[in-house]
Amino acid sequence: MNPASPQILDGQRVSEELLGELRNAAGAFAKRTNRRPKLALLRVGENHASVFYMRRKCAAAEKIGIEVIVEVFPDGTPRGPVEEKISRWNGDPSIDGILVQAPLPSAEYQRFIFNAIAPEKDVDGFHPMNVGKLACEDPTGFVPCTPKGILRLLRAYDVQLEGRHVVIVGRSLIVGRPLGLLLQSRAVNATVTVCHSQSRDLACIARTADVLVVAVGHAKLVAADMVREGAIVVDVGQNRDENGLLCGDVDFLSVAPKCSYITPVPGGVGPMTVAMLMENVIQACVMK
Amino acid sequence: MNPASPQILDGQRVSEELLGELRNAAGAFAKRTNRRPKLALLRVGENHASVFYMRRKCAAAEKIGIEVIVEVFPDGTPRGPVEEKISRWNGDPSIDGILVQAPLPSAEYQRFIFNAIAPEKDVDGFHPMNVGKLACEDPTGFVPCTPKGILRLLRAYDVQLEGRHVVIVGRSLIVGRPLGLLLQSRAVNATVTVCHSQSRDLACIARTADVLVVAVGHAKLVAADMVREGAIVVDVGQNRDENGLLCGDVDFLSVAPKCSYITPVPGGVGPMTVAMLMENVIQACVMK
Repeated sequence: MNPASPQILDGQRVSEELLGELRNAAGAFAKRTNRRPKLALLRVGENHASVFYMRRKCAAAEKIGIEVIVEVFPDGTPRGPVEEKISRWNGDPSIDGILVQAPLPSAEYQRFIFNAIAPEKDVDGFHPMNVGKLACEDPTGFVPCTPKGILRLLRAYDVQLEGRHVVIVGRSLIVGRPLGLLLQSRAVNATVTVCHSQSRDLACIARTADVLVVAVGHAKLVAADMVREGAIVVDVGQNRDENGLLCGDVDFLSVAPKCSYITPVPGGVGPMTVAMLMENVIQACVMK
Repeated sequence: MNPASPQILDGQRVSEELLGELRNAAGAFAKRTNRRPKLALLRVGENHASVFYMRRKCAAAEKIGIEVIVEVFPDGTPRGPVEEKISRWNGDPSIDGILVQAPLPSAEYQRFIFNAIAPEKDVDGFHPMNVGKLACEDPTGFVPCTPKGILRLLRAYDVQLEGRHVVIVGRSLIVGRPLGLLLQSRAVNATVTVCHSQSRDLACIARTADVLVVAVGHAKLVAADMVREGAIVVDVGQNRDENGLLCGDVDFLSVAPKCSYITPVPGGVGPMTVAMLMENVIQACVMK
């Protein structure tokens, strides 16, 4: 591999292959049960990114034959009505998966809402029971979509992780933490470091990474001086740059020439996340 | 701090202070409810270490006024009768905490048994719901005793962890994984690396640690060349050396002169673990 022309980790292409397989699985489920898999999506408010992500999820679901219902509560809705809706969905046997789009009004609000989703319908994998199963390597839980998508993308390019040092920048519940748990499992066997905003010597630690995953939501935070020659870089960021263009947490132009592999933004991790959500919905159907 | 004479992290002394406070808390509970806190312990077989640890836990409980009941199943007992006993304890309102002594006959056996304990009585904190709450920084769960004891011991000596790099060697469910989750939480803010038997360049990564925690169960695995000058070393190992003497995972004699702080074995992490179990039993009483 010549570091001057890195291999692009093409999440768009890999996710399309996966969606093709998932379409078959959804079709087989519909044939067997006489109904399509069904995903219930819920959002509070009109956060631009949330609206955008939900639209993408709906489109992917419809493309592969998963039925979607969408509930939108206005900004400022207290937890009560949201919890009530989730409780009704939990008890509805025609609904296989439930997803509440983050962010929610506060961290506490989010915690209560995520905890209200029945673990066996929690296709985002954010319920503590599913996070705990991931930590315990219990295969009966749901693995959060972005970590699962990153692992699947690396595997599609035969990137070996066993014994290698993965540095994750960002410790969110959505990406950094579950990714750390997934990568340190016996099924993957990576050595994992999780860094965050309070880490000292971040650049120094990042430079020790065989694989650097950046998930902080800060446009172009990672420049070439934070990346070791030949490293593999995975960029989870989805930000707007000073010209309003979509960009990642990594300064692609300066970093890419040093990498052996790198994800683009857009077209890297984002489509993989959506495909893994679809896979989790199919898993929810199968586990029933 | 002169690295040539490190400060000993005296878990025996710190745990005794804690047990004094816990005795008061247990007394207050007994006064308020007219009964003592009650811990149910269960063991399968006669593994020497298990027998020893259970005896220590019983002694500590009795010392501070926690009632203990003990159930021992013979070697080779299938899961059924053990699960039945746990189920009866789950439903018994006079029992506040339940602990099943690891190791159990197999990893799968252990998973089913840990999952059978009601999360609100799971004072060891190994149920996926409690592990997940730890990962999610949900304060209503139980934190496993050894990780909690390590953090408490470091705090007793005013060791600052914020932003510092903690390298944990070992990814067990009992120590390494939950310790990683605890230390990367917003309450602690450490940068955390988890290494294990499959890690490449273990010595090299270990030498980058401000704080090195070793929990692998391999006598004297860590020698001076794996430790940076001035590091803080926490030794979770409890092994027998070639002369049958108790020793840790760290070669104390060669490593100690390089450290700023180090735990002894015995008298370091072990007594802290027992004290934290008692604290978790009191927490179970209070949360009721």
